[in-house]
Amino acid sequence: MCIALGDCVPHQLPQCFWQLAWSLFGNRSRSAFAIVTRNMDIGNTTAEPPGDGGSFCLPPFTLSRLPRLSDYLPSLPSLPNPIDRIPFYHPSDGFYIAPSDIILRNIYFDLSCPSLPSDRLIAYHRAGPRRTVHFDPAAVCAAIVTCGGLCPGLNTVIRELVVGLWEIYGVRNIFGVPSGYRGFYSADPVPLDPKMVDDWHKRGGTALATSRGGFDLRKIVEAIERHGFNQVYCIGGDGTMRGAVKIFEEIQHRKLYVSVTGIPKTVDNDIGIIDRSFGFQTAVEMAQQAINAAHVEAESAVNGIGLVKLMGRSTGHIALHATLSSRDVDCCLIPENDFYLEGKGGLFEFLDQRLKQNGHAVIVVAEGAGQDLIPRTDAQKEEKDESGNPVFLDVGAWLKSELKSWWELNRPGELFTVKYIDPTYMIRAVPANAMDNLYCTLLAHSAIHGVMAGYTGFVSGPVNGNYGYIPIEEVAIAKNLVNTKDHKWAWVRSVTNQPDFLKV
Amino acid sequence: MCIALGDCVPHQLPQCFWQLAWSLFGNRSRSAFAIVTRNMDIGNTTAEPPGDGGSFCLPPFTLSRLPRLSDYLPSLPSLPNPIDRIPFYHPSDGFYIAPSDIILRNIYFDLSCPSLPSDRLIAYHRAGPRRTVHFDPAAVCAAIVTCGGLCPGLNTVIRELVVGLWEIYGVRNIFGVPSGYRGFYSADPVPLDPKMVDDWHKRGGTALATSRGGFDLRKIVEAIERHGFNQVYCIGGDGTMRGAVKIFEEIQHRKLYVSVTGIPKTVDNDIGIIDRSFGFQTAVEMAQQAINAAHVEAESAVNGIGLVKLMGRSTGHIALHATLSSRDVDCCLIPENDFYLEGKGGLFEFLDQRLKQNGHAVIVVAEGAGQDLIPRTDAQKEEKDESGNPVFLDVGAWLKSELKSWWELNRPGELFTVKYIDPTYMIRAVPANAMDNLYCTLLAHSAIHGVMAGYTGFVSGPVNGNYGYIPIEEVAIAKNLVNTKDHKWAWVRSVTNQPDFLKV
Amino acid sequence: MCIALGDCVPHQLPQCFWQLAWSLFGNRSRSAFAIVTRNMDIGNTTAEPPGDGGSFCLPPFTLSRLPRLSDYLPSLPSLPNPIDRIPFYHPSDGFYIAPSDIILRNIYFDLSCPSLPSDRLIAYHRAGPRRTVHFDPAAVCAAIVTCGGLCPGLNTVIRELVVGLWEIYGVRNIFGVPSGYRGFYSADPVPLDPKMVDDWHKRGGTALATSRGGFDLRKIVEAIERHGFNQVYCIGGDGTMRGAVKIFEEIQHRKLYVSVTGIPKTVDNDIGIIDRSFGFQTAVEMAQQAINAAHVEAESAVNGIGLVKLMGRSTGHIALHATLSSRDVDCCLIPENDFYLEGKGGLFEFLDQRLKQNGHAVIVVAEGAGQDLIPRTDAQKEEKDESGNPVFLDVGAWLKSELKSWWELNRPGELFTVKYIDPTYMIRAVPANAMDNLYCTLLAHSAIHGVMAGYTGFVSGPVNGNYGYIPIEEVAIAKNLVNTKDHKWAWVRSVTNQPDFLKV
Amino acid sequence: MCIALGDCVPHQLPQCFWQLAWSLFGNRSRSAFAIVTRNMDIGNTTAEPPGDGGSFCLPPFTLSRLPRLSDYLPSLPSLPNPIDRIPFYHPSDGFYIAPSDIILRNIYFDLSCPSLPSDRLIAYHRAGPRRTVHFDPAAVCAAIVTCGGLCPGLNTVIRELVVGLWEIYGVRNIFGVPSGYRGFYSADPVPLDPKMVDDWHKRGGTALATSRGGFDLRKIVEAIERHGFNQVYCIGGDGTMRGAVKIFEEIQHRKLYVSVTGIPKTVDNDIGIIDRSFGFQTAVEMAQQAINAAHVEAESAVNGIGLVKLMGRSTGHIALHATLSSRDVDCCLIPENDFYLEGKGGLFEFLDQRLKQNGHAVIVVAEGAGQDLIPRTDAQKEEKDESGNPVFLDVGAWLKSELKSWWELNRPGELFTVKYIDPTYMIRAVPANAMDNLYCTLLAHSAIHGVMAGYTGFVSGPVNGNYGYIPIEEVAIAKNLVNTKDHKWAWVRSVTNQPDFLKV
Repeated sequence: MCIALGDCVPHQLPQCFWQLAWSLFGNRSRSAFAIVTRNMDIGNTTAEPPGDGGSFCLPPFTLSRLPRLSDYLPSLPSLPNPIDRIPFYHPSDGFYIAPSDIILRNIYFDLSCPSLPSDRLIAYHRAGPRRTVHFDPAAVCAAIVTCGGLCPGLNTVIRELVVGLWEIYGVRNIFGVPSGYRGFYSADPVPLDPKMVDDWHKRGGTALATSRGGFDLRKIVEAIERHGFNQVYCIGGDGTMRGAVKIFEEIQHRKLYVSVTGIPKTVDNDIGIIDRSFGFQTAVEMAQQAINAAHVEAESAVNGIGLVKLMGRSTGHIALHATLSSRDVDCCLIPENDFYLEGKGGLFEFLDQRLKQNGHAVIVVAEGAGQDLIPRTDAQKEEKDESGNPVFLDVGAWLKSELKSWWELNRPGELFTVKYIDPTYMIRAVPANAMDNLYCTLLAHSAIHGVMAGYTGFVSGPVNGNYGYIPIEEVAIAKNLVNTKDHKWAWVRSVTNQPDFLKV
Repeated sequence: MCIALGDCVPHQLPQCFWQLAWSLFGNRSRSAFAIVTRNMDIGNTTAEPPGDGGSFCLPPFTLSRLPRLSDYLPSLPSLPNPIDRIPFYHPSDGFYIAPSDIILRNIYFDLSCPSLPSDRLIAYHRAGPRRTVHFDPAAVCAAIVTCGGLCPGLNTVIRELVVGLWEIYGVRNIFGVPSGYRGFYSADPVPLDPKMVDDWHKRGGTALATSRGGFDLRKIVEAIERHGFNQVYCIGGDGTMRGAVKIFEEIQHRKLYVSVTGIPKTVDNDIGIIDRSFGFQTAVEMAQQAINAAHVEAESAVNGIGLVKLMGRSTGHIALHATLSSRDVDCCLIPENDFYLEGKGGLFEFLDQRLKQNGHAVIVVAEGAGQDLIPRTDAQKEEKDESGNPVFLDVGAWLKSELKSWWELNRPGELFTVKYIDPTYMIRAVPANAMDNLYCTLLAHSAIHGVMAGYTGFVSGPVNGNYGYIPIEEVAIAKNLVNTKDHKWAWVRSVTNQPDFLKV
Repeated sequence: MCIALGDCVPHQLPQCFWQLAWSLFGNRSRSAFAIVTRNMDIGNTTAEPPGDGGSFCLPPFTLSRLPRLSDYLPSLPSLPNPIDRIPFYHPSDGFYIAPSDIILRNIYFDLSCPSLPSDRLIAYHRAGPRRTVHFDPAAVCAAIVTCGGLCPGLNTVIRELVVGLWEIYGVRNIFGVPSGYRGFYSADPVPLDPKMVDDWHKRGGTALATSRGGFDLRKIVEAIERHGFNQVYCIGGDGTMRGAVKIFEEIQHRKLYVSVTGIPKTVDNDIGIIDRSFGFQTAVEMAQQAINAAHVEAESAVNGIGLVKLMGRSTGHIALHATLSSRDVDCCLIPENDFYLEGKGGLFEFLDQRLKQNGHAVIVVAEGAGQDLIPRTDAQKEEKDESGNPVFLDVGAWLKSELKSWWELNRPGELFTVKYIDPTYMIRAVPANAMDNLYCTLLAHSAIHGVMAGYTGFVSGPVNGNYGYIPIEEVAIAKNLVNTKDHKWAWVRSVTNQPDFLKV
Repeated sequence: MCIALGDCVPHQLPQCFWQLAWSLFGNRSRSAFAIVTRNMDIGNTTAEPPGDGGSFCLPPFTLSRLPRLSDYLPSLPSLPNPIDRIPFYHPSDGFYIAPSDIILRNIYFDLSCPSLPSDRLIAYHRAGPRRTVHFDPAAVCAAIVTCGGLCPGLNTVIRELVVGLWEIYGVRNIFGVPSGYRGFYSADPVPLDPKMVDDWHKRGGTALATSRGGFDLRKIVEAIERHGFNQVYCIGGDGTMRGAVKIFEEIQHRKLYVSVTGIPKTVDNDIGIIDRSFGFQTAVEMAQQAINAAHVEAESAVNGIGLVKLMGRSTGHIALHATLSSRDVDCCLIPENDFYLEGKGGLFEFLDQRLKQNGHAVIVVAEGAGQDLIPRTDAQKEEKDESGNPVFLDVGAWLKSELKSWWELNRPGELFTVKYIDPTYMIRAVPANAMDNLYCTLLAHSAIHGVMAGYTGFVSGPVNGNYGYIPIEEVAIAKNLVNTKDHKWAWVRSVTNQPDFLKV
């Protein structure tokens, strides 16, 4: 048993506290009694962290604040959830989610850690249908927009928003906004219904078309008002989420009866807080094909190198997961871990050993890796993509060329082959696999339940396996990088035995 | 801020406690101050659960006790982890997992719940490499056994145990036990090495062969002693886990320097505590093929019914997930939810409506569903399978026959087609997909790290997304049923709009 | 050099013939000079067949007669092919197919054979667009009907008929007849256009729905007249082709300006003359999954038998091709080759050897194999399916049961497993693979070209790799059985080393 | 009925010939009587080619001469085929192929054609086991070498050579030559056996490794002698076949008891005479993925172009077949058909129309297309690849850049996207699909039967669907180009309605 005390230091606690504690927790063995505080070792009540079978307490959690329409619209309609009227529905306890249903974000701890991060222990409201909704289905006019690059599952999310709104809540006015944010003001919305979207979950890409950029806050919010949209579902990457925050804030500012929700789409899995982004698992699955091909090409050649570039500008999640899944990769290079080519502990030395040992090697490189190593022309230094992101140079092509130069210099005349595969579009344009389809279904339905319940400015997503509602601002700024200090990365290295590129 | 108080009732707490509390937590708003106890409402310090942005505390967690060889073998060797000697390894903080690293099992709560289940709040030790190991790799002799039916990923687990022991820890004596538990005493162990297992993760089934039954505790433990195995990795279902518990207990009883670990294998995903069992995602993926085929057959016929039986004796996880992924299913029948055929709210009524509406329907039925509805001969009532489980009757064949009789009785002469698909072996015999391969890798490596660290009688597996070590007894008795009261099942019904078969 | 002389016998030829021959062919060596006649040995002009480098002639071929609308409708419109008006079309020689373009059906010979089958040497008109057409596209009203079971590519054929008629010929009235032949008189035709069918080639099954039976000649022809259809495309198996013959004959009898064409659909590949039926290659591909699963199940068990039943009522083509493709099959049983279970040279003896040798075995059985071995109840003796075919008993279930009895009798108590897989619906309901999609495209377009050119009562299909037009009566009665005397079957046996079940 | 007369001209025939003819063929209608000669119209015996139901004769065929060891080694051993000794073998007529079994190469004709190509009518010996063999299996020492780039099925061919030699003929000395031709003299041969190659047909690439170049005739033949190889199986492209011709000639010259056979490997399908090369169908299948991805990317963008480069240096077979299979392609560019970008009838004009119409377009380009359009630096003009072929420039990258320039010039500021996919390695590194695996099996076994029968300097392959033996010189020089004058190309254009790029 233990007590969590935030900033306090055990030996500074008043004696009466310990009396109280003992009176409360009785004659349990001291070794099973721990106090966890924020900035110290486990207190002097015990020589070591709670042993097996012992108890401990955690610092307090903060329940993350979720914006609601009622924050600025005092007199919203309150209606029973239309699910009640579905003929086959029979009420069962636990079906409706209450405001007191929460999920924890922080769920693993080092009990010996001198600084338990009490001020960052966060909980979220659980996602799911609410007993009371704040939209009359007959009055709902929903808009769905997709922005940025393709991602497996995009069409499934659209489909499930349409089907969920229609079938579960009886909404009949659902529109797709074509071609990304600019479509709000430059194109006509496309009416959507379940029949039309029926097989979209089996199609890659986005049936609504997408584009980057085109974000014009004023025009967008005016279009939302003009079209009478009162539910806006924004599907896109971090830029899109930042845009959705602005739309939400402007709508809040104008006190519009419009709920805005974001559904993060990033095949790279670089958005934080939520467990993973949709399409990510499908991408890892598809990446196997490219790695297999690279492996086969490398194995079938004399001194063959297979080189695969995988998506991941700021993070190497796809590269890392694909490497761990494949087991055929000799070296995995990601943005989070600097690498170098020459000298002791460098990539060339490592490859030289592998070629001697096996006659071939496979390298997986995330597109964002090694960007600082690639010589950049002045023009390239200036260039930005449509979303304002710095232009990425092709690390694969550069690496291929560097490898060839290295070999020619060091082993002139000997056979050597580098086969470079860039499967990006073949990965991201496929339909979602089963798990991602399921995930997209749950994502979309969670979003709908939240919007119907009157939440706004939020994102729905799985947090440690349970669906929750997260303020969209939090998601828009959260990064999900590979932690190269912890296990997952260590596992890659234990799988590949690749260097850690720490110059020593 | 809050304090967790176990069984206590707030208004029974002595006044000095509140004084203490206020002295500790100062002049924070009362509304942000909660006390959570086991069997009561949130105390009278606040009228309602913590609002958004408020804080709350949880009841204490118990750290589940993990058996160790040192429990009964006082003087084990303690060696630095051989990972330290891998040439490319550079120590980084957080790489080694400490005994104080824990993960929470219970992570979502209803803060308004009158009885927060404090006595069931459990935490586990995190899985991962330890700074100190209790086996000298040169002295390790590892045995791997697979029991029961096939499951995608089985070969990957074997492969990763071999590769992990060999490459990470330098173990050289690794043996496969052929043909399940009986292989310990009836067959010669097969020496395994990384070269031999290199591509096993791309092969379905088990390269070691498997069988049901054949568990003879005495013979098995004697064989373990005779062969000099000191690490035993048991891969199998709940029966196998119960067997592993007995082996572990007998080994403990004999005070043998032998660590026993279980790796749960159940394509049905019916084992509790861990997030999911390996192969499950692959099975859901493969099930899509069968559902697609059933859908195509049904759609292409006049009054066509597609009927798919999916694995799942005690639980409907595969059926449920496959249904949610597919979106082509009209009705999903699982063991956790009784159903009936005739009368109001019954299956026939529902199908009749669907056929009228769409001209076809697709049914997914878990193999364990409806077992009590199927007429059973006396012989069938007695029969048991090799693992002692009751023999399951073929619910698919029965349902097909019932459907035909129903139609002939009610709509004689009209076209009607039932296409029944049983894809079981085609699902379970495939290689694991990428996510399952990755999962098997992490499972196997986690198990190895735990064994090398001197733990025994445990299972490694992901708990809310983080790998932990769980006492094998806990796993052997934990069931993972579909909770038909909560969301996941509700979602199925919201997807299919199928009846809930609650006779009213 | 040689001369073909039909029925004549060389030594009965008048002397002047030989003088003529020699005057024509000069002083070539006699050994390179052969005369091939119908019913005799190669003549006495040479002691042996033409050696390498020598020449030979073949008996005359008969050009198969193709019915035309002009046979009974003397004054049809003759129009230039509308392809001429496609903007991007530029005429090139060889684009239009002339009536003098023919393809050979018989293309391999044993030159030493005493009876060269001269009366069966057949040639067909080549398929393809004609310079002149006999339908005004604006007046065309086309009907497409699909009958019988599913087959990969069915939707592609429909799609390509629609797209081909619309895009190439400018036809605008195209209708699908729902639910098979009965749909002509019992349902409304469904208007089809390219937009509607755009992605049908990626969908399994038939979007028109299909059924067996329902053939009522009078009602069908009346419906054709009533709806004003003047082009009828019948897609189905041998029963459907026989029906199409009757429709064609009745239409001919009534002297209707209606062209009837058949597109043979039989996943079993049991239709003769044409090289193969569409969907067959896809089926063989999909069958690999089932065989792989059976192999994995068998390998992973102790004395494991994997048993796969594949489609093929009268022929074993799928079983044979799947076996040759897979290489994992120990025994392939087909209808064309009787087998027996017990005794010397029987299946049990063979399996016993394989199990001793490898510990497992895989059997592929075509559904029509062994029908005479399975005990049949009196009821089963009477039963017919909807198309009037005798009901097939489940050879797989029977074999599984026989195998279990055999083992229990001979090796009681020893482990033994039979895993039986029936992948039929999972094979036939998939979309066509690339080669079958291409094939369906060419089939459909060939059919359209022939119909537009005024042919009727014909089938288009590849004959030795080139597309031709074949009278539908010929196709309706042609069987394509596996020739167990020749190579293809010999190859199976050389691959599997299985017994030939010739009792000796 | 007709008579074939080679070079003769009917009206120059002596009257006695016609008397003879009439005496032979009696009072048949003249219209059913035709004479086909090489260089003239159908004779004046009939006003038009034989009508339907009529007969006709063909000019004589020449049986292509096949080299044999006995050509220069007079006293070879003659042994009964070891197949006779396989326990389960029972002799059946037609099992063994006789020297008089032939297949026709030319099988379609225009009977009205003024110049029937009689001097090019060719027949080949049928492939298959011979009753008599000229190698004692115990004395066989076989070498297998793979050269050039990867191709699906390569490993299957190797596997089947090993398994066929071992299982059917009882050969025990079988070696793989590593790394292509250079491996004969620079590496140790690798002994191969059925166990080792058991699952190679499920693996992409070549387990023997391959390389380009390295052909040194003297060294190779010396190595063949030194290692005692007496059967040499060369698997590779046209360069490899030309090498095999030289090896064969040198061996003939040295009168060595060594049979040489070639198995053409070219994923491009650019080798003539044989129906298709192995791996081609798999490549077309895999190409669908890339086209699908390009289509999805194009459809999901505003003015999106999907651009896919497919293999095919001298021919566009893969591009053409993949286009016809996919139906999602707007334009297919192949080496056999020149194209141009600008101006009337050019690619840009066409794309402009398609984008206006559909908003997107998909282009498939064979790697050899447009090579003359791409600006080439002086260095590039000189460069050759390892096989001495001219270096191909990346037509895809060039086209992408040209498209972007075109758009910027003509529609500045408007959204436009080109997604370029080069799936080459992902296509060619996969395992063969079922049909290709079967094909490789038959190819390998045919080759073995021919070699064992004492043939040499030959290639085995399907000619119009039947396996034959073809002199390797013929194959080495035969090209298989897409005939853009005939149907197959016309079909592409009818599918895509793309321009024919004939400047008019």
